[in-house]
Amino acid sequence: MTPSTTNSTGHEDNRYERGWNKLKEIDGQAGERVIASLQNIAPDLGKYIIEYAFGDIYSRPTLDPRQRQLITISTLTTQGGCEPQLHVHIHASLNVGLTPEEVVEAIIHCSPYTGFPKVLNAVSVAQRVFEERGLLPLA
Amino acid sequence: MTPSTTNSTGHEDNRYERGWNKLKEIDGQAGERVIASLQNIAPDLGKYIIEYAFGDIYSRPTLDPRQRQLITISTLTTQGGCEPQLHVHIHASLNVGLTPEEVVEAIIHCSPYTGFPKVLNAVSVAQRVFEERGLLPLA
Amino acid sequence: MTPSTTNSTGHEDNRYERGWNKLKEIDGQAGERVIASLQNIAPDLGKYIIEYAFGDIYSRPTLDPRQRQLITISTLTTQGGCEPQLHVHIHASLNVGLTPEEVVEAIIHCSPYTGFPKVLNAVSVAQRVFEERGLLPLA
Amino acid sequence: MTPSTTNSTGHEDNRYERGWNKLKEIDGQAGERVIASLQNIAPDLGKYIIEYAFGDIYSRPTLDPRQRQLITISTLTTQGGCEPQLHVHIHASLNVGLTPEEVVEAIIHCSPYTGFPKVLNAVSVAQRVFEERGLLPLA
Amino acid sequence: MTPSTTNSTGHEDNRYERGWNKLKEIDGQAGERVIASLQNIAPDLGKYIIEYAFGDIYSRPTLDPRQRQLITISTLTTQGGCEPQLHVHIHASLNVGLTPEEVVEAIIHCSPYTGFPKVLNAVSVAQRVFEERGLLPLA
Amino acid sequence: MTPSTTNSTGHEDNRYERGWNKLKEIDGQAGERVIASLQNIAPDLGKYIIEYAFGDIYSRPTLDPRQRQLITISTLTTQGGCEPQLHVHIHASLNVGLTPEEVVEAIIHCSPYTGFPKVLNAVSVAQRVFEERGLLPLA
Repeated sequence: MTPSTTNSTGHEDNRYERGWNKLKEIDGQAGERVIASLQNIAPDLGKYIIEYAFGDIYSRPTLDPRQRQLITISTLTTQGGCEPQLHVHIHASLNVGLTPEEVVEAIIHCSPYTGFPKVLNAVSVAQRVFEERGLLPLA
Repeated sequence: MTPSTTNSTGHEDNRYERGWNKLKEIDGQAGERVIASLQNIAPDLGKYIIEYAFGDIYSRPTLDPRQRQLITISTLTTQGGCEPQLHVHIHASLNVGLTPEEVVEAIIHCSPYTGFPKVLNAVSVAQRVFEERGLLPLA
Repeated sequence: MTPSTTNSTGHEDNRYERGWNKLKEIDGQAGERVIASLQNIAPDLGKYIIEYAFGDIYSRPTLDPRQRQLITISTLTTQGGCEPQLHVHIHASLNVGLTPEEVVEAIIHCSPYTGFPKVLNAVSVAQRVFEERGLLPLA
Repeated sequence: MTPSTTNSTGHEDNRYERGWNKLKEIDGQAGERVIASLQNIAPDLGKYIIEYAFGDIYSRPTLDPRQRQLITISTLTTQGGCEPQLHVHIHASLNVGLTPEEVVEAIIHCSPYTGFPKVLNAVSVAQRVFEERGLLPLA
Repeated sequence: MTPSTTNSTGHEDNRYERGWNKLKEIDGQAGERVIASLQNIAPDLGKYIIEYAFGDIYSRPTLDPRQRQLITISTLTTQGGCEPQLHVHIHASLNVGLTPEEVVEAIIHCSPYTGFPKVLNAVSVAQRVFEERGLLPLA
Repeated sequence: MTPSTTNSTGHEDNRYERGWNKLKEIDGQAGERVIASLQNIAPDLGKYIIEYAFGDIYSRPTLDPRQRQLITISTLTTQGGCEPQLHVHIHASLNVGLTPEEVVEAIIHCSPYTGFPKVLNAVSVAQRVFEERGLLPLA
């Protein structure tokens, strides 16, 4: 495995553009709203999220978008206190083709590792997202 | 989605057995050693891990074993201080068919969410596991 | 200490029932509401909370219900972001006979270990619970 | 470095007074409100915050108030779930002379270490504080 | 509940002495070693631990030493990465009269709240302490 | 505050180079060893640390290197389990001109926020770094 420095340097100019497209594709309008909300206080932070999280990380091969969302849901559930980000990324999970049942299953899978309280908090966010999309009750 | 109480109650007697088989299938000898290490101090804890984590959770449908390991790696990386459990579950990830590259990719994917330090600690455990299996360097 | 596999297997059929009774005894209506809120999205998660947290763990001997609530308050205070669960379990603590002063003392005892911010957040939840029960001001 | 036991013992009687003055100087009315809110439930906790956090720690030499606020913002951002305390301490940071840009920069600096979600949550608190002070948009 | 400012101010001179005696009573030589280890780098930190954790908090009424150790074990288990402090406080728990079974039970009780990994790490510390005291296997 | 997209895009090609120089300047050989250790398993992760943490974040204006290290020490102390990274960054703190006393003070300042255990763990790393540099005892 050799570092992709040379290759990616060639694409450096595109990091922002590639990231912005990726963010819109995955997070949709919810993601755009996060970036917009930073304009009056920390626009560079929005730029870093676009460039690093989406232009670099989400644009990598090896794992597909659905696998990446499972990982994202797990890390956000585990951290606790990241309900706003869970809200964005549960929407994103459905956007990239995970079913509501798979989203809930990913959260439940965390329970032996991180305990019921954080899992309940994450399910509660999923509930809000599914309501917004008219997906409840799950059959 | 109706609760699976009735069904699973029918299988209650098998929770321990089902969990033990699942643990051996996924975690292999490393998992068995964790359970064995509890015998002189907290055997019931071993029983709960077998029954709840493996008999209940890992035995559920909706997500396959490779998806479950991606989620497990993410929650353990994010918590921090769970290096012994990461060691078991990176072995488990390879046991169920994830490639070393996918394991590393799952850890790297956590970096925008949980930061570089915990990601570095998890990669360091992966490095140890891959060395134990003669998989380094990744090409 | 031999594992209680055999014994508890004999009681396996009763885990859900035993847990449900324990949950109602300790958490009261607040606990029932948590389970009910999961019905349209993750009823199995409610089942696991009943069976594992209450049927298995809270039903164990060695520590009495008041000791268990002190431990629960400590772990929830320490995790942070578990205000909804603290709300349920501070009610539960009073239900099983802890005094409001003991609840507050348990939270204050965490301060050298977990710092003032999480302790303040937990006291704030206690304040809400005590108001709901007409217990303020503490004399 | 010899322990300052003797010296500080001489000042022991002043810990509460010194802390109270320091709290008012740094946190201002927001800090006083935190202490006041504890009167009906845990007044001793307020006393400990005054004596230990402000009378002991914030009154130490070696680091100046602006350096201390940078550290405080970093630890509160990193813990997650400490939005109420961040609110108090971002006000405090401005009170002791940090610029809004320095506050935001301190939060952004945490991003490679603690990830974007907690950083976004902290920026969101900063946004609220800056709005309360009429400081937005940052130019 | 009125703040105990006046009373405790009268005892201020004794905070260090009272704390030091309490630390020796509860933590024993392990606690003294922690303080001694700070002498060449941060003696004031040792002083604060003695004065605040032991002179103020552990010296409070309302909860007895065994209840306080249950809470301490829970907060340390939950934080993760506090194995050295768990080592000291599991010794302390036995010093104040908790049985090894109660210590293990307190740790197991955290499992529905904080997950198995941190619980396993804490049991592993308990195992080391019990071995040092010749208490294994638990019968 | 307008986003620095255009400017930094112009410098995109230099992110890696600028980051590498910054990493060597701040973290010195300890930082280089971290990057080197990733070559056989996750070289891209090393690249991201260089580009994002050092090329983007540490290269920003508004806070100087000593202020940034105070923030870094605080976030690493607070997270817990980041002892290897604390080791690198306490060395880095001395490299950029913080005194050992300021490093210890930054750690102690976290104690009211994050509690004594994590503070003790961080002081213990500082002790190791200061020993490696022959700086103990602090006078």
